[in-house]
Amino acid sequence: MKKIPNQMLIIFGASGDLTTRKLIPAIFDLYKDGHLPESFAVLGVSRSQLSDKEFRDKSIWKSPFLQKAIAKQEDEFIKTFAEKFHYHDLGSEYDRSYDDLAQKIAELNEQYQTQGNYIFYLSTPPSLYGTIAKNLNEANLSQENGGFRRLIVEKPFGYDLESAKKLNETLHHYFEEKQVYRIDHYLGKETVQNLLVTRFSNSIFEPLWNRRYIHHVEITNAETVGVEKRGGYYDKSGALRDMFQSHLLQIVSLIVMEPPISADAEEIRDEKVKALKSLRIMKSDEEIIKNTLRGQYVTTQIEGRTHKGYREEEGVNPESTTETFAAIKFYVDNWRWKGVPFYVRTGKAMPTKVTEAVIHFKTPPHEVFMSQDAYRKDNKLIIRIQPNEGILIKFGVKVPGLGFHVDQANMEFYYSDLESAQVMDAYERLLLDAMQGDTTLYARADEVEAAWRFVDPILKCWENNPAVNTYGYSVGTWGPRNSDEMIEDSFGWRNPGDHLTDETGFCILC
Amino acid sequence: MKKIPNQMLIIFGASGDLTTRKLIPAIFDLYKDGHLPESFAVLGVSRSQLSDKEFRDKSIWKSPFLQKAIAKQEDEFIKTFAEKFHYHDLGSEYDRSYDDLAQKIAELNEQYQTQGNYIFYLSTPPSLYGTIAKNLNEANLSQENGGFRRLIVEKPFGYDLESAKKLNETLHHYFEEKQVYRIDHYLGKETVQNLLVTRFSNSIFEPLWNRRYIHHVEITNAETVGVEKRGGYYDKSGALRDMFQSHLLQIVSLIVMEPPISADAEEIRDEKVKALKSLRIMKSDEEIIKNTLRGQYVTTQIEGRTHKGYREEEGVNPESTTETFAAIKFYVDNWRWKGVPFYVRTGKAMPTKVTEAVIHFKTPPHEVFMSQDAYRKDNKLIIRIQPNEGILIKFGVKVPGLGFHVDQANMEFYYSDLESAQVMDAYERLLLDAMQGDTTLYARADEVEAAWRFVDPILKCWENNPAVNTYGYSVGTWGPRNSDEMIEDSFGWRNPGDHLTDETGFCILC
Repeated sequence: MKKIPNQMLIIFGASGDLTTRKLIPAIFDLYKDGHLPESFAVLGVSRSQLSDKEFRDKSIWKSPFLQKAIAKQEDEFIKTFAEKFHYHDLGSEYDRSYDDLAQKIAELNEQYQTQGNYIFYLSTPPSLYGTIAKNLNEANLSQENGGFRRLIVEKPFGYDLESAKKLNETLHHYFEEKQVYRIDHYLGKETVQNLLVTRFSNSIFEPLWNRRYIHHVEITNAETVGVEKRGGYYDKSGALRDMFQSHLLQIVSLIVMEPPISADAEEIRDEKVKALKSLRIMKSDEEIIKNTLRGQYVTTQIEGRTHKGYREEEGVNPESTTETFAAIKFYVDNWRWKGVPFYVRTGKAMPTKVTEAVIHFKTPPHEVFMSQDAYRKDNKLIIRIQPNEGILIKFGVKVPGLGFHVDQANMEFYYSDLESAQVMDAYERLLLDAMQGDTTLYARADEVEAAWRFVDPILKCWENNPAVNTYGYSVGTWGPRNSDEMIEDSFGWRNPGDHLTDETGFCILC
Repeated sequence: MKKIPNQMLIIFGASGDLTTRKLIPAIFDLYKDGHLPESFAVLGVSRSQLSDKEFRDKSIWKSPFLQKAIAKQEDEFIKTFAEKFHYHDLGSEYDRSYDDLAQKIAELNEQYQTQGNYIFYLSTPPSLYGTIAKNLNEANLSQENGGFRRLIVEKPFGYDLESAKKLNETLHHYFEEKQVYRIDHYLGKETVQNLLVTRFSNSIFEPLWNRRYIHHVEITNAETVGVEKRGGYYDKSGALRDMFQSHLLQIVSLIVMEPPISADAEEIRDEKVKALKSLRIMKSDEEIIKNTLRGQYVTTQIEGRTHKGYREEEGVNPESTTETFAAIKFYVDNWRWKGVPFYVRTGKAMPTKVTEAVIHFKTPPHEVFMSQDAYRKDNKLIIRIQPNEGILIKFGVKVPGLGFHVDQANMEFYYSDLESAQVMDAYERLLLDAMQGDTTLYARADEVEAAWRFVDPILKCWENNPAVNTYGYSVGTWGPRNSDEMIEDSFGWRNPGDHLTDETGFCILC
């Protein structure tokens, strides 16, 4: 592991929910695991009036997200951690001179010997990204004179292609691209990264990984919950923006990409961008309506209990046409993938929480033996992102007994079987990468734009035709029934864990 | 399942060990599982003087190999079974007129309505096969006039190429090839047959199954026991004849063969013969000495206990040069396998009882990520024939944590996890096949000769150079140390379960 340089983390939106819930616990984990550099300070910045002590109390000592961790440690250990935290009140607005902030940072830099290395973490609404970047620049805080200056921004990065391009332009006005870290916590997941390793550290998968052997690719992301308290945000976003454009297209790019020259961040991101650029953009409304489908969960009675429909949720327009389910069929226009359909779906209020990619291989070219069941002859490689992370191959074996009857069996690997070091939380991992200057798992400007370029026509078409291809679905189902008809050859979607009756979790076997 | 025609099983050598130990229990299992046809009779033939009752007592009621099974059943159920058994005393020798035997068979055929369908099972020394075939023919028992006439012979089929050819010639004098069933109980094993199904009912293995992706193939057969009571027989045979020429070359042929047109017996056997014919025959002593190695286990002290060496065993010549361990490296001269070395070894008195084939794939052409251990980068497909039958793939996964470190993990399938019907014993299975006229799992004349053709020069060279490349090895080791040097690139043999300390069995993970 590389030595982590001394540095300061400046958090904008320090009194916000994300900071308390995700960011501070991740910093604490880094501290606990010994990953923080010798000299390290955190400066919280926000519009709330807080003293250092109040900030430490709120985000550490009294944080509900750290209570368990704190209880396990000595007070002295927590105290040493908490004393690294400081606070700066920005006053009533973000758009103002940051000279006094710069002054405060300079003082802390002196005090902590952080050598002018600053990470600015924007845990604010995306609408403020441009403003903050501009003011940091004007306060001479974005220029790398001496130490490094990095800017971490949270998703959503843009609202559509145009806004994403504009945001990139703005940021590039004040920061160089190599200073900008666009976080996508999906890339912090071990299993997502393992997709790369599985493909490119083995000789047995890559020869099969193309149009000659693969019939179609299927990605499912399902959540059991509805929009919960995020109704206000979600109603302006929808499944396509919230999940598909970011997380799911990231998974797509890792499946689609060519082998990189090396594991170097730019080499990997170059290949990912190339992959995203090769997705066939749907041009006409006709094409989009044929290949996409959306849904909204409706009020549902399950065993006497009423589950709210989406339009009944707090913060949601009662006549909203925002999708809570989206299924997209598309093709990849390059040498490797030409003609192989990709089916990607994501939904809320579904039967189980799961994210997985399924590579469906073609059936054997010639049938030598008799199969037990005509619909289960294809080999599948299932990459489970969550839960029960692992890899499974479905393949044909001989049924014991006379003749050569074939049935399907499973060859499986569970990530949890590995003896190696514990798996880091995605945020902890990504933060550590940024502190080391490793951009591999952060999205690059062209990457984000390539993803939006594919999604943009679908968004526009859906906006212009709100009633077309939109269906209601009951809570606890796999989305609108029509979605089953999207996949040709009666394959249908794989609904993992569907036949399990208990709720104790399920394995990738199912 | 096909209906099994009414028939009679005539066992030559009916009072012998193999009959009591293997054959009768297999017939009983067929009876118990409901696989016997409505009309069925067994006629034991031998030189012992036995009444029907004595034969039934010896081979059923008092057989130590049926006691457990009998105890679980009603007496009436066993009685019905035993009454199908009859005996015919051949007098002092096998080479005599079988007219009275023919008379007896005709009577039983009448009594049992077996419709002239006869299977002759030769459970005698191989030296009698020709004699019995001739006399059956002269008594008009080999001609298929009305019913079928089948001849099952046990291994060893021949002692070398010449004797095997001569034996085939003799048998073909009196029986047609399609009437001759050469038994190799290895082919009765589910996992051996599953090799075919794994290869040809899946689309993901066959594209990798060639010289482009496979580095080398390794087959290990190990027994913990020495020669036990078979010293007299074994000393004239040796590991090469006893295991390699038959069982192990059968496994080789299933790994090497091209996809058959169908699962039809002749199609599969055609491909197996072609596979065996493509093994590169070693022509010079120099070549043979370079690519083969043999060993004999020697007297060994293990924890204060003395284990007999081979030359101390009962029935073994104290100056014997017969090998109890053989390791052969060879190539396959065809389009698919050119240049891929095969390493096959078999031995007695080894650390564990195991039979497995390992397909070693080439390392990835380009190293994108860092590996943990330089010697474990190759993907392996391990096909475990026994024990713990299953299939395992060793592949690279990401080590949890920073960067892209790779370590090896296992994806595994155990045959025992299948819910399907119980696995038949190899003898039961093969007998049922013969009763149905399915020759798939029986060796054809040209198949046996092709195997001998490959083995013959090695046998001759070893006979002419008894001291060359012959090494002693301690009981409980993986054979002579020199055998480790046979495999290039410091791969070495895979010694399954080697690092396990307990003796409770081991898994294919090891």
